[in-house]
Amino acid sequence: MANPTAAMLVIGDEILSGRTRDANMHHLAGRLTEMGIDLKEVRVVSDDHDAIVSAVRALSGSYAHVFTSGGIGPTHDDITADAVAAAFGAGIDVRADALERLQAHYDRQGTQINDARRRMARIPDGAALIDNPISAAPGFSIGNVHVMAGVPAIFEAMVASLLPTLTGGAPLRSVTLRIARGEGDVAAALSALATDMAQVSFGSYPFIQNGVYGTNIVMRSSDEDALDMAAARLAQAFPEAERQ
Amino acid sequence: MANPTAAMLVIGDEILSGRTRDANMHHLAGRLTEMGIDLKEVRVVSDDHDAIVSAVRALSGSYAHVFTSGGIGPTHDDITADAVAAAFGAGIDVRADALERLQAHYDRQGTQINDARRRMARIPDGAALIDNPISAAPGFSIGNVHVMAGVPAIFEAMVASLLPTLTGGAPLRSVTLRIARGEGDVAAALSALATDMAQVSFGSYPFIQNGVYGTNIVMRSSDEDALDMAAARLAQAFPEAERQ
Repeated sequence: MANPTAAMLVIGDEILSGRTRDANMHHLAGRLTEMGIDLKEVRVVSDDHDAIVSAVRALSGSYAHVFTSGGIGPTHDDITADAVAAAFGAGIDVRADALERLQAHYDRQGTQINDARRRMARIPDGAALIDNPISAAPGFSIGNVHVMAGVPAIFEAMVASLLPTLTGGAPLRSVTLRIARGEGDVAAALSALATDMAQVSFGSYPFIQNGVYGTNIVMRSSDEDALDMAAARLAQAFPEAERQ
Repeated sequence: MANPTAAMLVIGDEILSGRTRDANMHHLAGRLTEMGIDLKEVRVVSDDHDAIVSAVRALSGSYAHVFTSGGIGPTHDDITADAVAAAFGAGIDVRADALERLQAHYDRQGTQINDARRRMARIPDGAALIDNPISAAPGFSIGNVHVMAGVPAIFEAMVASLLPTLTGGAPLRSVTLRIARGEGDVAAALSALATDMAQVSFGSYPFIQNGVYGTNIVMRSSDEDALDMAAARLAQAFPEAERQ
């Protein structure tokens, strides 16, 4: 059976302006690969209601899961929860169970809850909460869309809360061979091998190190025997290859 | 007049599997912001013909410019040039001017050009070449789509070749104030200011440092006077704010 598919939607002007370097995509990609969920597409959009609604609709219609990051804090530019609710035609309001978590958190801190903080308890009707062990304000899942925070430490904690509740697939194994030759010298043998072994995906990643051109060949498959065979055949064609 | 808009399309299984951390998005975002081209959307798709064709069509129809990275090397998984040609219904073949650049490069290196390397001279009909001062194999522009390499050093060199040929807009200035208070304490005053000063965009970015919650407020505008006014009003509301 084919693995479940997924897309990610990163929301935030700060990524598109170059102010902030996104870190959440790389983290999520690695975690999903480990559990056999195939990340097929990522989109980054700005803090714009229509852009978020249309991306959520397009992605949730095309993939088994959609993971979002960003835009669920207490300030005026945090519009993700409302946009996701709109994408599903769901109502949204402050919800008692979410507010309780916030209240308990701020009580422990001795901080007053105010209107801005109360906004973080706005949850679309019918959504399930995602735990936030760091700063309490929960994420949520509605339909196949999982809405999480943009701050990397909080995003990662929410991913850790969420993923064990999802069904994965066959985890992809990978083997990398490093060959101290340019891609152009590797391409013909690699192409023949890729045609021959359709159950393995072959990626070719050139590098330049100390002025020398080299190529990393990454072979990926959930079939371990096929992967070993592919690595052996590639090593036979390029005896100088080093397994990484 | 509004600034030109842009989208980026990152192509590569290695990003989606979590093997490689994309660096090109952050680089391009910064360069475009400096020259007043507004990056509105980024998509990451895999090395899949149909996925590339449909993303190129969607983005080139919606934005003034589309910048792609990845998939223009010599190996079987380098399918970007053919997919972009297909998206425009253009023919594609090895082109004499592109092949000359490769030939000269490999002559200097004393390397044989072969069929795999010759593939890198495949250029869609009607495209203009983008210089590659590092490894010669050119990128190209067809219509409003600019096709560049994925290796960061080469991507950056191609961006440096390309951007001076494009017309920018009013560069966005930004001012950041750092406030040692949580977002929830800043939100109300910030929201009032954002409503009042529509010509400035206000972004709120929480951080946690040494266990203390703080907020960076980033104000962006191409109107310098409005930006100064916004910064002054915010500093008045939060006297502890530090300009970054």
